[in-house]
Amino acid sequence: MPETINFIVKDKSFEKFAMMMLLGTTADAMETKTNFFFTFWGLNLLVKKFKPKVAGMPFPMKGMGAKIFGKRMAKFGIEDPWGMIKEAVENGNLKLYPCQMTMDLMGIKKEDLYDFIEEPVGAATFLEMSEGGRIVSL
Amino acid sequence: MPETINFIVKDKSFEKFAMMMLLGTTADAMETKTNFFFTFWGLNLLVKKFKPKVAGMPFPMKGMGAKIFGKRMAKFGIEDPWGMIKEAVENGNLKLYPCQMTMDLMGIKKEDLYDFIEEPVGAATFLEMSEGGRIVSL
Amino acid sequence: MPETINFIVKDKSFEKFAMMMLLGTTADAMETKTNFFFTFWGLNLLVKKFKPKVAGMPFPMKGMGAKIFGKRMAKFGIEDPWGMIKEAVENGNLKLYPCQMTMDLMGIKKEDLYDFIEEPVGAATFLEMSEGGRIVSL
Repeated sequence: MPETINFIVKDKSFEKFAMMMLLGTTADAMETKTNFFFTFWGLNLLVKKFKPKVAGMPFPMKGMGAKIFGKRMAKFGIEDPWGMIKEAVENGNLKLYPCQMTMDLMGIKKEDLYDFIEEPVGAATFLEMSEGGRIVSL
Repeated sequence: MPETINFIVKDKSFEKFAMMMLLGTTADAMETKTNFFFTFWGLNLLVKKFKPKVAGMPFPMKGMGAKIFGKRMAKFGIEDPWGMIKEAVENGNLKLYPCQMTMDLMGIKKEDLYDFIEEPVGAATFLEMSEGGRIVSL
Repeated sequence: MPETINFIVKDKSFEKFAMMMLLGTTADAMETKTNFFFTFWGLNLLVKKFKPKVAGMPFPMKGMGAKIFGKRMAKFGIEDPWGMIKEAVENGNLKLYPCQMTMDLMGIKKEDLYDFIEEPVGAATFLEMSEGGRIVSL
């Protein structure tokens, strides 16, 4: 069994969301365990009401860009990204951790977040969790 | 022999190009193997006609910035970055992989890309390839 | 003892500064060794006179954002971030390395930098240093 991969997600862009979703669900399909630690702006991606925008497009396209990419991804069979993420969580391979300090700093509450995520953790817990495994900062 | 380092390149900036070039060719000189997986906007860096811009400069300098840095780097003996990359590829130490899904999503074709790169791969192949090695997302 | 974690810091934003500070000082408290390699714009974070701005806020807030976050972090007991970093350096767990080539490219001198940092190193030394350990590009 390959070692767990521990990802840090620090941005709230559509690109980061898509990478998280693709890596997490692909790893799930391979029975590889992944932990994602959402810190700073990245925590927004776990907020139910949040709609990520495409960072790498010029200003007026940022919001529209996410819709365009969403439609194109649907053609590749990715019609319900959060549904796929939830399934990977339920399979026990994917874990999504909100950063405790970011929640406190930004005033984000547990009930604002999707309900299939783990309890908030701090940097020390993340470092402990990732001992012996790989750390990738997306 | 140290383990292979597997880099993810997700941006198209001059900075990311320079980091990829410096890390890949330095590793080659040390006989360390590196794989680079180009996904999202990062795939543009493998397009022959593409000219990267400096992301970390104010708007009117972004294009010019790459020329300025290019000239300064030439003084450090880096006169032909892609030539150095190609040499590292030919030495068998550096491998450049385009992301299959990004090619499909963005309509980029194999013939648009440099001819010394590997066949496109998906996220699953990248994760398999990197088992037992390190993953670094630039 | 867990292996050393080798971080690459390539941006000069307040967010990257905060991540570096939190990860480096948390690891110090856990007796985990970390090396931080500051390259490209990231080198600015080691310049004594430099004030990082918040990258993830709209333009007029970028400078003010750092003050707001600084105040909020003070409420969590982080009143003197550089003092905490210096302490971790003195404990022998945290090492801050400026990238030699970046110093040359940008004309930044040793005396511009904090005096508790290590001697400048190049990419080859960084790769050697990180052999057998983890590499994380923030």
